[in-house]
Amino acid sequence: MTEPQDLFRAQLTQPVRRSARLQPQRPALVDGDRTWTWAAFADRIARLAGAFHALGVESGDRVAMLADNCAPYVEFFYATLWAGGIAVPVNTRWALPEQLHCLDDAGPLVLLCDARHLSAARDLLARCPSIKALILIPGDSVAAAGPVADALDYEALIETQAPVADACRGGDDVACLFYTGGTTGRAKGVMLTHDNLMANSLVALTNMDMDEDTVHLHVSPLFHVAGGARVFSTTLAGGCHVPMATFEPRGFLQNIHRHRVTLTIVVPTMLNLLLQALDTEPDLAAFDLSSLQLLTYGASPMPEALLKRTMARLPQVRFMQGYGMTESAPVISTLGARYHRPDGPDTGYLRSAGKPVYTAEVVIMDGNDQPLPTGAVGEVCVRGPMVMKGYWGQPELTAETLRNGWLHTGDAGYLDEQGFLFLVDRVKDMIVTGGENVYSAEVEAALYQHPDVLECAVIGLPDERWGEAVAAVVVPKAGRILAEADLDQTCRTQIAGYKCPKRYVIQAAPLPKSGAGKILKAELKAPYWQGQDRQFN
Amino acid sequence: MTEPQDLFRAQLTQPVRRSARLQPQRPALVDGDRTWTWAAFADRIARLAGAFHALGVESGDRVAMLADNCAPYVEFFYATLWAGGIAVPVNTRWALPEQLHCLDDAGPLVLLCDARHLSAARDLLARCPSIKALILIPGDSVAAAGPVADALDYEALIETQAPVADACRGGDDVACLFYTGGTTGRAKGVMLTHDNLMANSLVALTNMDMDEDTVHLHVSPLFHVAGGARVFSTTLAGGCHVPMATFEPRGFLQNIHRHRVTLTIVVPTMLNLLLQALDTEPDLAAFDLSSLQLLTYGASPMPEALLKRTMARLPQVRFMQGYGMTESAPVISTLGARYHRPDGPDTGYLRSAGKPVYTAEVVIMDGNDQPLPTGAVGEVCVRGPMVMKGYWGQPELTAETLRNGWLHTGDAGYLDEQGFLFLVDRVKDMIVTGGENVYSAEVEAALYQHPDVLECAVIGLPDERWGEAVAAVVVPKAGRILAEADLDQTCRTQIAGYKCPKRYVIQAAPLPKSGAGKILKAELKAPYWQGQDRQFN
Repeated sequence: MTEPQDLFRAQLTQPVRRSARLQPQRPALVDGDRTWTWAAFADRIARLAGAFHALGVESGDRVAMLADNCAPYVEFFYATLWAGGIAVPVNTRWALPEQLHCLDDAGPLVLLCDARHLSAARDLLARCPSIKALILIPGDSVAAAGPVADALDYEALIETQAPVADACRGGDDVACLFYTGGTTGRAKGVMLTHDNLMANSLVALTNMDMDEDTVHLHVSPLFHVAGGARVFSTTLAGGCHVPMATFEPRGFLQNIHRHRVTLTIVVPTMLNLLLQALDTEPDLAAFDLSSLQLLTYGASPMPEALLKRTMARLPQVRFMQGYGMTESAPVISTLGARYHRPDGPDTGYLRSAGKPVYTAEVVIMDGNDQPLPTGAVGEVCVRGPMVMKGYWGQPELTAETLRNGWLHTGDAGYLDEQGFLFLVDRVKDMIVTGGENVYSAEVEAALYQHPDVLECAVIGLPDERWGEAVAAVVVPKAGRILAEADLDQTCRTQIAGYKCPKRYVIQAAPLPKSGAGKILKAELKAPYWQGQDRQFN
Repeated sequence: MTEPQDLFRAQLTQPVRRSARLQPQRPALVDGDRTWTWAAFADRIARLAGAFHALGVESGDRVAMLADNCAPYVEFFYATLWAGGIAVPVNTRWALPEQLHCLDDAGPLVLLCDARHLSAARDLLARCPSIKALILIPGDSVAAAGPVADALDYEALIETQAPVADACRGGDDVACLFYTGGTTGRAKGVMLTHDNLMANSLVALTNMDMDEDTVHLHVSPLFHVAGGARVFSTTLAGGCHVPMATFEPRGFLQNIHRHRVTLTIVVPTMLNLLLQALDTEPDLAAFDLSSLQLLTYGASPMPEALLKRTMARLPQVRFMQGYGMTESAPVISTLGARYHRPDGPDTGYLRSAGKPVYTAEVVIMDGNDQPLPTGAVGEVCVRGPMVMKGYWGQPELTAETLRNGWLHTGDAGYLDEQGFLFLVDRVKDMIVTGGENVYSAEVEAALYQHPDVLECAVIGLPDERWGEAVAAVVVPKAGRILAEADLDQTCRTQIAGYKCPKRYVIQAAPLPKSGAGKILKAELKAPYWQGQDRQFN
């Protein structure tokens, strides 16, 4: 039974009710030609929640989603919470055994999927005994997917079910399980509560100036918390959701132009692709991007040359970097717009992860969990209302990760005297050659000045003479041929001789990247360091 | 015993620890010539908390404060929370029996006071058995107050006590008891939790653009939640506190000038006094007010003429109105800067209480607690994480006020189609005369155009012919004489004849005001309506 005071806890569904009452006719959700107002959105999720109830979902039961970003994805989060359930977004990039592990662990009663993932969803339905029903989101390609007698129709459920009352879960009730890989072993389900995601959303509003005029383009995958948490902040602001299935430059620009997008979150590699496209496809310049106010990025630092080129292309846009992890729902620190200006008193922090957000207490701990002084490198530990409730079904791992009342991030870093957080695993993207420190980002920035470079990664290779040698793996643009001599000259005109690569690997194949778009340098380095008794970074 | 997860709840003390670590040398608190950094502030409150422990304060015990706004007032809040206690700020404007009721009800172990309230505090100590110790805040006038053998010395305690660890209370633990009058009966202690005040603070940051560069002038009394809650938002932002004992124009301007104040909260009557002073004391113009970015006000709507005059005087300042109550910690809705511009598309809302804040769900209920449609007048009800835990020791009154999961404000109002909240008890500040509606504020605005008017209130008096007659109670500036004919002419050149007062009361005595500075119109009207069988508004 709900206690009266329980109704005053932070509830992620409350902003939906608020907007349905205060601004029922303003747009909540846009997908191509279709727009749903807040009144319509609230009605649809209350009906979908009714469908979940009819399928047996009760308070605390899980509902899973396997789909690309789409309008129903946003509805899935809220309908699940409205029904009292826990939302489990599934990583679409995983192989079937990985997805099966996730669902076996979470034990959802219902699985939703889009047409592109219907085949995988059927496999999962057959193998995961907890799933009682499969719901198919209609899409253009559904007809091609063959008969779907084994799946319920998403729109038909919404049409036929009566709306139910909000279960009004909140506070430290679990809202979502986001699965995240570990350094070892299988992915774990991170329990994020209503309090966790509300704390992150409230900080998002103040750090990103979000309000009811915010139009958020969801182009980063919603199954990662970096993308998924934006669903909750956009709704809290009373803004409008614009989901986009996968990043590609033309569609990205089209969405901004068409829906007057004000805010989005990307990874730097997306911006790289975007700028390449703007260079080679002149008609893209016709899109009006003047609505875009703030571009936030994470996963990896922005190469300075890329940032400057983007700024020149989008002079009205501000930039913000976010650092965080799934276990902190997710934002721990941000590097704000003032630190992204090319000149002025606040430059020089682009290699930092920014300052801890208002609700985050960050401490650098030594190996015995004792706080270290300013400037000393240790493990980044975090406390605050955004810290997860724990790992689903893993009390021991939870206790270990949250030991002594601190979330242990596993990241090494330090705080400087101005309160900026520096991550050493980023600083470690540095090559020590002949006793000199060479920062990969600086060399990469130089290489990107060559007009035929599509992408590149600078790594340290073992070298008898220098300890490490600077090496560059470079991918030319389509149809272009790159010569080592040209690249070398490009570098030598910009950076000191000892920083220039001693070795080039020029390859047509794209660089290996993580699901979040981060270049996997460890993978590039591995073959060269095999058999070395020293560890590479 | 604290559970590990308890450490991740919202804690009002956490921003103190954050600032002490991230920006130890930045100013936390300024009082005249003295500045305390965040490092010093955190150290002092940890020592004062140690003193509270030594006096027997344990988790959940109350510590009370009877003082004007001052630097130790800010420390009192945090030291009490750091010690695990509950802070009870006492209204200094109350008579002794009212203060005694407050302390008897709250049962504090410790009472702090400043020199000006030492005599009252001694009386309270003698009569309130729960109080085990009196702590005197040193001040210029302490020497004159005679021997203080019965009181402990505030600074001596801080000097001699060792700092203790933060009790880390948070979440729905009660943080403060703010006593507030009721329509009937004695003042009640409103239990505001860490969650309540943190929710209000997070919304404050986004609605008022607060950050670490914020310098907040605390000129509204800290014993009211309107002023007191700003202590928590300023600390959350990592900003700087500038307490000021009582409002007077020269000191107000001096503080803004000297400490580069960016933000403050006032009542409109303070602005009126300020403008009068600027008109009559030319040397006040020498103060540099360019740092002031935002002036927020509450308690009563801003008369338009007063707003326009203030804007002309302070053209760089933005204005924001807040509506709320103690039970909602306190802000329910705000009317932002864009609605205070004299022209443009967003004007016309100055009589509204603004839009519900992001975390507030506002519903207008009928007498049976059923939601009313847009535009219908009923009781303003609120749900959200800012709603109090209840009234201290009054479960029945709590249940009645929070019935059906909604805070019942007792205010009548309606929501318009754009989501703006209008309070009818403000709209009711309206006189119906000969079937025409006359808004008092409009008539008052006209009267304020007369250069010799210090303050005025327009009220409806019983009238055989017109139902109600418009009447004005006017106080001239010192040394000026006002004639009815002049006032009448001032009005007639500006507003329709039926709106002009038919009767004037010109008096030297100031208008009666509430503790929050609101003119008590009911008190002005009462003698005229005595014996009438109709109710006045």
